[in-house]
Amino acid sequence: MSGSPQIYRTSTTAPVNIAVIKYWGKRDVALNLPTNSSLSVTLSQKSLRTHTTASCSESFSGPDSLILNGEKEDIESSKRTQACLKSLRSLREQLESKDNSLPKLSKLTLRLVSANNFPTAAGLASSAAGFAALVRAIANLYELPQSPEELSVIARQGSGSACRSLMGGYVAWRAGTNKDGSDSLAEEVAPASHWPEMRALVLVVSAEKKGVPSTAGMQTTVETSTLAPARFNEIVPRRMKEIEKAIHDKDFETFARITMQDSNSFHAICLDSWPPIHYLNDVSRAAMNAVETANRKAGKLVAAYTFDAGPNAVIYYLEEHTHQVAGVFRNILPNTPGWEGEFGDAIGKNEYGSLEQKTFMTLKAGVSRVICTGVGGGPEKIDQHLIDASGNPVPVDS
Amino acid sequence: MSGSPQIYRTSTTAPVNIAVIKYWGKRDVALNLPTNSSLSVTLSQKSLRTHTTASCSESFSGPDSLILNGEKEDIESSKRTQACLKSLRSLREQLESKDNSLPKLSKLTLRLVSANNFPTAAGLASSAAGFAALVRAIANLYELPQSPEELSVIARQGSGSACRSLMGGYVAWRAGTNKDGSDSLAEEVAPASHWPEMRALVLVVSAEKKGVPSTAGMQTTVETSTLAPARFNEIVPRRMKEIEKAIHDKDFETFARITMQDSNSFHAICLDSWPPIHYLNDVSRAAMNAVETANRKAGKLVAAYTFDAGPNAVIYYLEEHTHQVAGVFRNILPNTPGWEGEFGDAIGKNEYGSLEQKTFMTLKAGVSRVICTGVGGGPEKIDQHLIDASGNPVPVDS
Repeated sequence: MSGSPQIYRTSTTAPVNIAVIKYWGKRDVALNLPTNSSLSVTLSQKSLRTHTTASCSESFSGPDSLILNGEKEDIESSKRTQACLKSLRSLREQLESKDNSLPKLSKLTLRLVSANNFPTAAGLASSAAGFAALVRAIANLYELPQSPEELSVIARQGSGSACRSLMGGYVAWRAGTNKDGSDSLAEEVAPASHWPEMRALVLVVSAEKKGVPSTAGMQTTVETSTLAPARFNEIVPRRMKEIEKAIHDKDFETFARITMQDSNSFHAICLDSWPPIHYLNDVSRAAMNAVETANRKAGKLVAAYTFDAGPNAVIYYLEEHTHQVAGVFRNILPNTPGWEGEFGDAIGKNEYGSLEQKTFMTLKAGVSRVICTGVGGGPEKIDQHLIDASGNPVPVDS
Repeated sequence: MSGSPQIYRTSTTAPVNIAVIKYWGKRDVALNLPTNSSLSVTLSQKSLRTHTTASCSESFSGPDSLILNGEKEDIESSKRTQACLKSLRSLREQLESKDNSLPKLSKLTLRLVSANNFPTAAGLASSAAGFAALVRAIANLYELPQSPEELSVIARQGSGSACRSLMGGYVAWRAGTNKDGSDSLAEEVAPASHWPEMRALVLVVSAEKKGVPSTAGMQTTVETSTLAPARFNEIVPRRMKEIEKAIHDKDFETFARITMQDSNSFHAICLDSWPPIHYLNDVSRAAMNAVETANRKAGKLVAAYTFDAGPNAVIYYLEEHTHQVAGVFRNILPNTPGWEGEFGDAIGKNEYGSLEQKTFMTLKAGVSRVICTGVGGGPEKIDQHLIDASGNPVPVDS
């Protein structure tokens, strides 16, 4: 319609990441500054991604809004979202003040629409991909010149681990030392193309009850675990160096050992917290046992488990060991949903897993879904918009 | 029969002890020298005890022998048993060399017969009570003047935790610093009479598979856990002081908190070992949850869980809180064997435990036996012998 104000819009996707050196503990809760550095693998957006469209227009009135998976979110009262929006607007204002020809987008109401391509039932924390997509989409809308590292400082304020989802491949989040968090940012250790053979199989385990939320759990650990200081100050810094070298050298055995040890160390300080925090259950332990069996059978480390703040197992392995690792799980869980798709199609049943019967039965009864994926790239700008040319949200696919 | 050589014999019982500050890690494997001090509660021999008769005679020939629960044990090849026998004989020799009128018992073959009053199925490590009874019985046979502390140095070489079963009540095992282990011994912190109201309820959980044996597990932890040094060097020494004060002050809340924290710390360093060691399972965690629920309901700590190298829960509580603590478990497990006897008779069902259904069902399905007991005294000399006047083993009650 001629004469009506322009609708500015841009869309991006952002990936999920799963840490191999865990983030657990904040030294500053408001700024999401961590007690230690962490490192993750960015997972392919073919399997898991958040898709976000950011738009603004003089025709939009009222407060900024966000629709997530078809539901309106209350971003007014979300300090974390507000911190991200404020930082991005401020960067846009700097551009506008330097170049008078630029439209004053920083003054306009933002409409954001976001959708995940994976069900909430997958039990995966979607906040990392969500905040990464939000920051990346608005940065694109505002045509900000900042690098992914610089934007990661903003995404970090939304959700700590979101900073690692602004890049693909193997990504470190440097804890930093500055009080204002300006050096607490993500850095690419290696792109996905450096070691593209990395695969991940997620075993989604139905928890008997919801675990302690991670922000609350982290604070309990920081305040009460007597073992945690050694982890924060000595153990993780040493492991960060070792695993970065393993990634550079494509040394899967070292990568696998450190990944498993660091997951165990994280759950150890959870158990050492007061009151103790439990995320692993008997199904998680059966997954650990199956990974140990696969490694024993191979005579070397061909698989690595890692667990976040819940019972779900993420199992890393190299493409060449698909049959020895993922094949064992496909044999145990042939009818479990999630084996379809490019990564899953490559996995055939391996009937020779030599698992104990108890492990086999525990996994069979306890895993409700699998996700087959692998290392992937960072956020991608796409042309498919979740807001139409009139500024209205596009109906969500059901 | 006149003219036949005299049969010397003496009998003793010795108790089981359950640590509240855990022993996990040896600084010297041969001598059983620990990486840290520990502290335990000696449990009543009304519920759990080993009964041992030691005898010697010129009429006995051949090597020393031990019959345990009706089965001949191979003590010839047991370095730990041999170390105990050698030390005890050496002390007897010193007496004999000073007083020529004493019979030369140190030169005679020993016959030992031992029996536990609790089934192996109870899943309790019986080596502590076993070695304590063996050492105490032979020390009595030899009429050794050594104190329980001095004898504890000998029992420790049989089984580390055995040194704590030579005394009743609340017993510390001081790690010591001497290379030869001469100062690594047990000391009574307080007798049972100081705080006789302490009760213990053991929930015997059938493990899905046998866990890592403790000696091997301890060494794995010492060699690989990066969190363990903080526990050995800082955390346990601090907790020892705090819990000894709590025992002196009869401060159950502090006693309970440290007991639970130290159990969790021990299992945390197990999980942090490589490969990781798991002793807790979902039934153990349900027991923890039930204890936490009882404490929340009481508005203070009235119960404390602790777990050794297996899934069994030991729950400490004071007599005055029997209904609030043990009563909840009796309500969940009314038909589980073990509620009979003096301690069990005092426990009525408490239907108002407010447990989550899942916790209730997990305990109901996973606990195979209970043991009701409380703090008790040290070894007792008794007249009932397991070796008859002719030197032959008395048939075991079936």
